[in-house]
Amino acid sequence: MGQLIIGIDVGGTKVAGGLVTLKGRLVESRIVPTHADQGFAQSYIQIVHLIERLIRAAGGKHNLRGIGICAPGPLNPKTGVVINPPNLPGWRNIELAKMVERQFGLPAKVENDANAAGLAEVLFGAAVGFKDVFYVTVSTGIGTGIIINRKIYHGQNGVAGEGGHVSIDYRSPYRCGCGTLGCIEALAAGPAMARRARVRLEQEHNMPSALREMTHGHLEQISPLMIQKAARQGDRVAKAIIDETGFYLGVWLAGMITLFDPEAIVIGGGVSRIGRPLLDKVKNTIPQYTINRFAVNTPLLPAKLEKNVGVYGAAAVFLPSGEEAETGA
Amino acid sequence: MGQLIIGIDVGGTKVAGGLVTLKGRLVESRIVPTHADQGFAQSYIQIVHLIERLIRAAGGKHNLRGIGICAPGPLNPKTGVVINPPNLPGWRNIELAKMVERQFGLPAKVENDANAAGLAEVLFGAAVGFKDVFYVTVSTGIGTGIIINRKIYHGQNGVAGEGGHVSIDYRSPYRCGCGTLGCIEALAAGPAMARRARVRLEQEHNMPSALREMTHGHLEQISPLMIQKAARQGDRVAKAIIDETGFYLGVWLAGMITLFDPEAIVIGGGVSRIGRPLLDKVKNTIPQYTINRFAVNTPLLPAKLEKNVGVYGAAAVFLPSGEEAETGA
Repeated sequence: MGQLIIGIDVGGTKVAGGLVTLKGRLVESRIVPTHADQGFAQSYIQIVHLIERLIRAAGGKHNLRGIGICAPGPLNPKTGVVINPPNLPGWRNIELAKMVERQFGLPAKVENDANAAGLAEVLFGAAVGFKDVFYVTVSTGIGTGIIINRKIYHGQNGVAGEGGHVSIDYRSPYRCGCGTLGCIEALAAGPAMARRARVRLEQEHNMPSALREMTHGHLEQISPLMIQKAARQGDRVAKAIIDETGFYLGVWLAGMITLFDPEAIVIGGGVSRIGRPLLDKVKNTIPQYTINRFAVNTPLLPAKLEKNVGVYGAAAVFLPSGEEAETGA
Repeated sequence: MGQLIIGIDVGGTKVAGGLVTLKGRLVESRIVPTHADQGFAQSYIQIVHLIERLIRAAGGKHNLRGIGICAPGPLNPKTGVVINPPNLPGWRNIELAKMVERQFGLPAKVENDANAAGLAEVLFGAAVGFKDVFYVTVSTGIGTGIIINRKIYHGQNGVAGEGGHVSIDYRSPYRCGCGTLGCIEALAAGPAMARRARVRLEQEHNMPSALREMTHGHLEQISPLMIQKAARQGDRVAKAIIDETGFYLGVWLAGMITLFDPEAIVIGGGVSRIGRPLLDKVKNTIPQYTINRFAVNTPLLPAKLEKNVGVYGAAAVFLPSGEEAETGA
């Protein structure tokens, strides 16, 4: 059996691919444009060419264990079908795993971005040594992965672990794209932070803020990065927005700890890179919103595989599972 | 190996015990008082006598596989230690599993009430045939059990699955006994229903209601059963309280489906026996608060083992796990 895995990360604008060893070392990586606007067939050609090049780089198929593919949801990892991702127009009920298997005669698996990233963090990232881990990535959205016994927990229909769409405020004024009021994604992801900052500055229009200067008064241009910068400069509004975000994430993670009592939480994504001002608030909030008296000791680990996480994640689905590893596979 | 299991259910007022076959048939059952007010030693003597009688009823130890004990939390099922249950004063860090093992020379396990009940429903109750199930019991509190692959999911410290203490409203006026604002237990368990009814009738003191008559004006005596009866008579306040309760439970279960995508939800406990007026509201609310588009098809099954559920649950922890059963154990 081959000792290398091809990991493919399909995004809305680019497809990243790489060769990963069984120990989680990335030995080769390439990027091609997705051409998503030209429909599925064109994107598929891009993916096929990328895989062909990676097979050559691996020295042939006999060196490969399989092809893991990470794509945006909704998709079904059990059947390998990509359903209809919003940022891949023209992709509709694509049997991606089967197509790739037939094309290359190698086993292929398709996995949801956040699930794969979570598994990769457990197998060769921030949470090595842990078995039961809750993974979260906070950026434009909030993605989560539930890793139990070093495996992704998929649920009945393959759509478990959508923690970003759990409500912490059923009567919230903020309705998520998924239809739910008060999802943590609608409260604490990047766009939610930017919106809260904008609304506050619109309401208190005499309040000075570095965010007004940074956007030259075009408050709709506020980004999470600007909020981070402004907060570093001591801006009161920006600091309050980060504090609120940490509080929301803390309430929500408290609930996850109440349910999962995990060995560790791994937190990644652009928003999480705000670092201490955010994470300290998360940590201080958690014990106030959980019955789990061990929660204060649950490690909150920054993600380690931020660069190429999709490629690592895609490859991770082909690695020996935790149990196999334990018995010396 | 023995073909019978002793199940012991320790409650605040009584200890129930029984003999259960490997197929989940209860062939013998007995009840003794707990004498909890007389401290742990006295309760332990009661438990020991009960087990002795059940061993005799089984025809001796060689017919027994083990002793399962269900007790109120907090406890650690991994170590068999009962920590400090509020309704068992004097029980503090009791190594119950070890004590019983030494006393009888039989393997013993200690499990949390709701976890054990959930497992029993999967192994021989409402959810037979399912592997991944979310169990909930709504009565004086809200207990839950997460069953994955026909096993109880315990988490790192043995305290996972406390779903009743997940908040759906971080700014709720209702603080749970656990300290969290807006736990589903603080919103939807029996005492919360009674309180909401009382508060509404106090505020609208001219509003007629069957609940005023039932309690002779002593609104603090309102019980969930009274609310159920009054609603059947068409009482507007009682109907509204049931409707709200169903809505809260629906929002919360929607979140559980978003996370677990379970094959089924089993719902038990006194409050759930209100039946359709409550459960219809739960079912109608779930799809509005989840991203899981399969949620409408997730069966919401009434619990089957309500009577003696603690004895069945305690015994369940000694049954062959799902995987063993599948391979014909």
